[in-house]
Amino acid sequence: MAENKIKPRILTGFMELLPADQILFNKIYDTIRGVYESFGFLPLDTPVIELSEILLAKAGGETEKQIYRFNKGDNDLALRFDLTVPLARYVAQHSGELTFPFKRYQMSKVYRGERPQKGRFREFYQCDIDIIGNEELSLVYDGEIPAVIYNIFRRLDFGKFTIRLNNRKVLNGFFEALDLSDKITDILRTIDKIDKIGAKNVTEELEKLEIDSGKIDKIMSFISITGTNNDKIKALKAMGIDSEKFAEGADELEKVIGYMRAFGIEEDYFEIDLTIARGLDYYTGTVYETVLDDYRNLGSVCSGGRYDNLTEYYTNTKLPGIGISIGLTRLFSQLKEAGIIEAESASLVKALVIPMGVDMEYTLRAAGNIRNAGIPVDVYYGEKGMKAKMKYANKLGIPYVVIIGEDEVNSNTVTLKNMNTGQQKSVAVDNIADEIKTQERM
Amino acid sequence: MAENKIKPRILTGFMELLPADQILFNKIYDTIRGVYESFGFLPLDTPVIELSEILLAKAGGETEKQIYRFNKGDNDLALRFDLTVPLARYVAQHSGELTFPFKRYQMSKVYRGERPQKGRFREFYQCDIDIIGNEELSLVYDGEIPAVIYNIFRRLDFGKFTIRLNNRKVLNGFFEALDLSDKITDILRTIDKIDKIGAKNVTEELEKLEIDSGKIDKIMSFISITGTNNDKIKALKAMGIDSEKFAEGADELEKVIGYMRAFGIEEDYFEIDLTIARGLDYYTGTVYETVLDDYRNLGSVCSGGRYDNLTEYYTNTKLPGIGISIGLTRLFSQLKEAGIIEAESASLVKALVIPMGVDMEYTLRAAGNIRNAGIPVDVYYGEKGMKAKMKYANKLGIPYVVIIGEDEVNSNTVTLKNMNTGQQKSVAVDNIADEIKTQERM
Repeated sequence: MAENKIKPRILTGFMELLPADQILFNKIYDTIRGVYESFGFLPLDTPVIELSEILLAKAGGETEKQIYRFNKGDNDLALRFDLTVPLARYVAQHSGELTFPFKRYQMSKVYRGERPQKGRFREFYQCDIDIIGNEELSLVYDGEIPAVIYNIFRRLDFGKFTIRLNNRKVLNGFFEALDLSDKITDILRTIDKIDKIGAKNVTEELEKLEIDSGKIDKIMSFISITGTNNDKIKALKAMGIDSEKFAEGADELEKVIGYMRAFGIEEDYFEIDLTIARGLDYYTGTVYETVLDDYRNLGSVCSGGRYDNLTEYYTNTKLPGIGISIGLTRLFSQLKEAGIIEAESASLVKALVIPMGVDMEYTLRAAGNIRNAGIPVDVYYGEKGMKAKMKYANKLGIPYVVIIGEDEVNSNTVTLKNMNTGQQKSVAVDNIADEIKTQERM
Repeated sequence: MAENKIKPRILTGFMELLPADQILFNKIYDTIRGVYESFGFLPLDTPVIELSEILLAKAGGETEKQIYRFNKGDNDLALRFDLTVPLARYVAQHSGELTFPFKRYQMSKVYRGERPQKGRFREFYQCDIDIIGNEELSLVYDGEIPAVIYNIFRRLDFGKFTIRLNNRKVLNGFFEALDLSDKITDILRTIDKIDKIGAKNVTEELEKLEIDSGKIDKIMSFISITGTNNDKIKALKAMGIDSEKFAEGADELEKVIGYMRAFGIEEDYFEIDLTIARGLDYYTGTVYETVLDDYRNLGSVCSGGRYDNLTEYYTNTKLPGIGISIGLTRLFSQLKEAGIIEAESASLVKALVIPMGVDMEYTLRAAGNIRNAGIPVDVYYGEKGMKAKMKYANKLGIPYVVIIGEDEVNSNTVTLKNMNTGQQKSVAVDNIADEIKTQERM
């Protein structure tokens, strides 16, 4: 009976994990979610499939090419390629039912059918927060957003990190004052690359844009302003740029770093970086990037900024907002590869109950006692020998084993083995959970 | 400037919730996840998009019609329509890297492009657990699965429920002994409907299948065996059916209800129901359904059973398993509509800090103190008056408000208002979290 079997496989560009890595991934996911919720962000879960008309309201270029789009019945459908467009649609659709400022988080998969390459995924988690105001939105939120980033990366403990921030009004005002408004897009794209290509190449690229050398000097000295955060603010204000926008941006930057300090962000964890532009036609105020100091080559692990109007394609109401995104799938894959994170256990249970030829009732009572005390527990029901059962516990990295043989049943006890220390101890069947908790504290 | 705006909307058959309902949904989701994890089930997260060849390996009929299928580049792709096929593919693909018995949960969205109708969704969450053995799988797991169901629905507290169970060997053996093997599929489909159409209609449908009236009588008396669970087992064994399969099934049923008792499931919460068949060509042993006693019209809220071979389309290794599924999107929508569940709050924070024209540093220190003590907190930064700010807290159902005016700043205190009792109290800025915790305990 030679049957044709189909080779089990997934598509390239899709991440799927073995249990130990999935546990690790979920731990990071849950940490991010916990911090988002601790700041009052509300959960949102939009459909993966939406009308192409909705998702492509704004898009063009790359997005159109990458989007997964198809027909079903009479509908022209697509899979969401980010969480911002669905948020805009949601807020426009439900603005009458939401309370503003509306703070939402969404941590879901998005889809981009790009050519697969190292570190690029076609299906990946974005972990987004946004705060949407009705007509206006306090500048304090520009300080709260980095406070969220700070709390997340402190808890995740991937080592020292730096939140870099800038203000688009400073950039735009500066270039307007230099009479380079018509070239802003190209200039910003160029200076945004300074980390990757260096100052010399940036200068060369600016020359190609036919900017005269006097102005290039000014640009280069502007983006290389150094010193502490306060020094940079002072230097900006002392530049004498004749632009209201520039002055407003510098003022906002000063206030925002004041708020950041008030939020308890240590000075060492953030820096004004005048080269950051992020997205070209979207952000209008504060912008952020976050780098892991020891792994700067990973690029920004958390970016975002402030925008003037979230919902312009769907409604006339002006809804300014601010938000950030963590591309968790990519980040996880990079951290794993760099050895910064490592799976600890292939199990979520703290204890494995192993019955050795005894009746199930006693065994299940022991397991129930442990579980009811809030300790995740599993029972090995297979008919294998002791050795195979201990190997199973070891392989999964389960910290406690509860052995039940005839002696234990007769004396109303179990033998509790601590797999880390190797120590065994006889424990009354009703006290197992307490004993595990005691040993955990030691 | 009359711009064309796109009407913000989603597709019919897709569920999207406002924040208060989303919070409620997540609470249920997290409860189910917590119980799954407490029994040692491991998380799995497979891609939403897979090759059509993989997803349709077994399918036919309805599935082919409903599946979302499309091409991207050279690939014939589809969206998963359940979590079982991806599990089969995953286990076949990674069998060498998994530890068996492999217990996994997956709580993710699946897609079925069916004609939208009341209570039917095109995108919905399935919350699945399965236990997969390598070549064999202990019968104790047939008792563990309902123990998981029991723990979930006790915690969810939707009122009294009943786990109904049966064994396919009993059914198949019975019909084989009656020499009705060739009609088993039709007969099972008919008796599966007895709850909906009643005994009289079942009899009539069986007549249409050209079964002689003597056999119909036997079938009808078989499926109407009554009494306690023990009575039913006794009655089955006393029927004198000449079938090894039947005897094996009855024996398994007896053992499984023994395990269920040992797992601590109260007798009142489960019953043997000989009419349950579930899926026609898939299940081979124990099968389950779960009904909410006060809302039987909702149908089964959690179903599943044991199958012989999960991965037959992908590998020759025999991998028997057992599993259940909760269709959470449908269940949530039904429970909401029936008024069994209701959103409690449109916020996740316990406290809202309201500054009244005072400096941000003091305000943010107060909020930080609360958040660092593990209490989710938000700050209202807007420039509105006191009344508007209190209204905001009320609307979101936030239980504590922390008011900070000049007096408070000068005395290093805040005014803590309990929104449930209406009581206000002056509290030192460093003691707010403790005071909230104390009031929570009262």
